[in-house]
Amino acid sequence: MPNCLTSTVPFGDQNRFPIEMLESNNISYLVNPYNKKLDEDQLIELLSDGVEVLVAGTEPISRRVMEASPKLKHISRVGIGLDSVDLLAARDLGIKVSYTPDAPAPAVAELTIGLMLCLLRGVHLSNSELHKGQWQRHFGRRIAEVTIGIIGLGRIGTRVLRRLSSFGTPRLLVNDVLPNLQLNREFKLEWSSKDVIYREADVISLHLPLTSRTKALIGSKELAMMKSDALLINTSRGGIIQEEALLNSLKSGHLNGAAIDVFEQEPYSGPLTQVDRCLLTAHMGSMSLDCRTRMEIEATEEAVRHIMNKPLLSEVPDEEYQVQLLHLKE
Amino acid sequence: MPNCLTSTVPFGDQNRFPIEMLESNNISYLVNPYNKKLDEDQLIELLSDGVEVLVAGTEPISRRVMEASPKLKHISRVGIGLDSVDLLAARDLGIKVSYTPDAPAPAVAELTIGLMLCLLRGVHLSNSELHKGQWQRHFGRRIAEVTIGIIGLGRIGTRVLRRLSSFGTPRLLVNDVLPNLQLNREFKLEWSSKDVIYREADVISLHLPLTSRTKALIGSKELAMMKSDALLINTSRGGIIQEEALLNSLKSGHLNGAAIDVFEQEPYSGPLTQVDRCLLTAHMGSMSLDCRTRMEIEATEEAVRHIMNKPLLSEVPDEEYQVQLLHLKE
Repeated sequence: MPNCLTSTVPFGDQNRFPIEMLESNNISYLVNPYNKKLDEDQLIELLSDGVEVLVAGTEPISRRVMEASPKLKHISRVGIGLDSVDLLAARDLGIKVSYTPDAPAPAVAELTIGLMLCLLRGVHLSNSELHKGQWQRHFGRRIAEVTIGIIGLGRIGTRVLRRLSSFGTPRLLVNDVLPNLQLNREFKLEWSSKDVIYREADVISLHLPLTSRTKALIGSKELAMMKSDALLINTSRGGIIQEEALLNSLKSGHLNGAAIDVFEQEPYSGPLTQVDRCLLTAHMGSMSLDCRTRMEIEATEEAVRHIMNKPLLSEVPDEEYQVQLLHLKE
Repeated sequence: MPNCLTSTVPFGDQNRFPIEMLESNNISYLVNPYNKKLDEDQLIELLSDGVEVLVAGTEPISRRVMEASPKLKHISRVGIGLDSVDLLAARDLGIKVSYTPDAPAPAVAELTIGLMLCLLRGVHLSNSELHKGQWQRHFGRRIAEVTIGIIGLGRIGTRVLRRLSSFGTPRLLVNDVLPNLQLNREFKLEWSSKDVIYREADVISLHLPLTSRTKALIGSKELAMMKSDALLINTSRGGIIQEEALLNSLKSGHLNGAAIDVFEQEPYSGPLTQVDRCLLTAHMGSMSLDCRTRMEIEATEEAVRHIMNKPLLSEVPDEEYQVQLLHLKE
C-alpha cells in the first residue's frame, strides 16, 4: 500500500533526487505507471489503494476524484497552475493543497523569449523549408522595433519583461488584474486595457492562470482585433485561447504567426499541426532541467513534511480559493 | 548604361528608400535581374555595360571580375564581411571599397540568442514532431545553467554578450585575436584558448570573419574535442565550420545539436538538411527589417557619394587589407 502517488510525468527522470527523498524517509510510493497524463478514472484507480499524498501534475483532481479517495489528505502540485484542482472540494473534504509557485517561472520566461525570437525572425519556417530543400531568406523584426503586449504580470510575465530589457527598448503594453506600479521604476510600461493590447501590439504574450475568467479569453472577436501581422504566444495554459478560433484565423491568413506551448487537450494532435506558421511545442515551459528538478524536489519535500507530520511550507494561499469561489458564483 | 549595379539580394524590397535615393540623385541603376546570388561570370556580364559603382552582396568580387570591369571604381558592400572581395586586387586596380560594419550587428546578435534558446530547449525538434503528430516533452537547459563559449568578440560577439546578460550569469568563456579587456568591466569573462572553449563549453557560438586563418577552423578534430551534448551555433560565415565534418559528427550521435545560418555554398541544399537536430536558417542573421534597411541605405549613400564626387564615409580600414595581405603570404 503506497503512502504517496506521484502522478506528474516525468518524475525523477533526469534527476533521481526526489525519489531518493521518498526512499530515505521510508515512504512507500507509486510512480504513475501509465507514464502519461492521467484521466479521472485512472487517478481514482491509482489512489484507491489508500494513498495519502498525491504529488500531482496537471491531471483533473476533481471533487469526484477526491470523494472517491477518502484516504487522500494532501495534494502537492508540481508547478503553479491550480486549474486542475478543485480547491473548494479539497477544503470541504479536509485535503491540504500545496504548490511550487516560484520554481517554474525562470524556465517559462526563457522559453517565451525563445519563441518570441523564433516568431519574429521566421526561424521555424526557415528551418522546415531548408529541411525540405527550399531556400528563402525571411525578413524579420527586432524586439526593440516592435510593440510588445504582455497580459498577466505575475511571476512569469515580470521575468519576461526583465529578459526583454537587454534587447533594447520596445514599446511595452502591459495588463494585469492588479497593476504592480513598482514595476514602473524598472521598466517603461504602458498599463493598457486588453483591447488596446489586442489592437496595438505586434507581439502578444499571455501569462495568466486558467480560471473561469480567463477561459476562452482570446476568441474570434479578440483575434480579429489584432494586427494582421501580429504574433501571438501562449506559454501559460491551454483553453485561454480558443483553439478553433485561432485555427480559423490563421487559415484565413490573419496573424503572421503564433507560438503555442499549451493546449486544451494534452497530448495535442489537433489541426493546428497543419499550420506551418504556428510554432508548436509540447508543454515545455517549465521543462528546463534545473527548474523541473526544483519543482519536483519542492513538491516532494512538502509530501515528506506532510507524512512526517511537519507543517507545510507552501500551502496554496487563500486568494486562490477565493478566485475559485468567486467564479463559482458568477 | 547604368552607373550603378545593385547585386545584393534582396534590395529595396521591404523599403524602397535606397532605390529612391538613386532615382532622386539621377543615378541610372540596374537591380540584379537574376534575383539571387551571382557567380563571377554573371557579375562580369552585368558590370560589362560600364558600371562604375557596385552595391554588393556576398557574391565573389575576384581579381578576374575587377580586371574584366575597367570602369568599376567603387565597391560598396551591403554588410560587414569582406571575404567575398579581393581587397588587394581592388587596391591594385584603384577601386575603392566601403562597407556597413555596424548596421547588421544588432540583428545578427538577436538571431543568435534566438537560435541558442531554440537549441537549449529543443524548440525546433518539438515543433517538427508536433507537426508530424508526435507529442514528446523535451528537457532543456537555461542559459544561466550552462557554460557559453564565444569565439570572436567584435561588434556581434559583444552584442551577444550584452543580450545574454538579462538571462542570469552563465559561465562565459571568450576568445578573440585581440582581447578587449574593457569588456571585463561589464561582464565576468574567462578569456580562454579555443581548445578550452571546445572542451568546456555547453554552447559554442562563432562570431568571426571568414579569412584564410578562420577557414575550416572547426573540423573533425575540433568537433571531437567538444562535449558529447554540446550545442554549436554559426551565424558568421559558412566555411568556418567544415560542413562534412559537422555532418559526420552529428550523424555519429555527437553533439546535442547545431544551428547553422551560413553555408559554404548558398543557397544551401546539402546533407545537413537530413539531420533533424541541425537547426537551419537561410543566412538571415542581418535580415531584420531595420538592420537590412540601414545596411542598404548606408551602402547606397556611399554609392551616391562616390558618384557625386564626395568623400566616402565608411571606407574599409587598412587593417582589413593587412589581413588579406598577411594571409596571402602564409
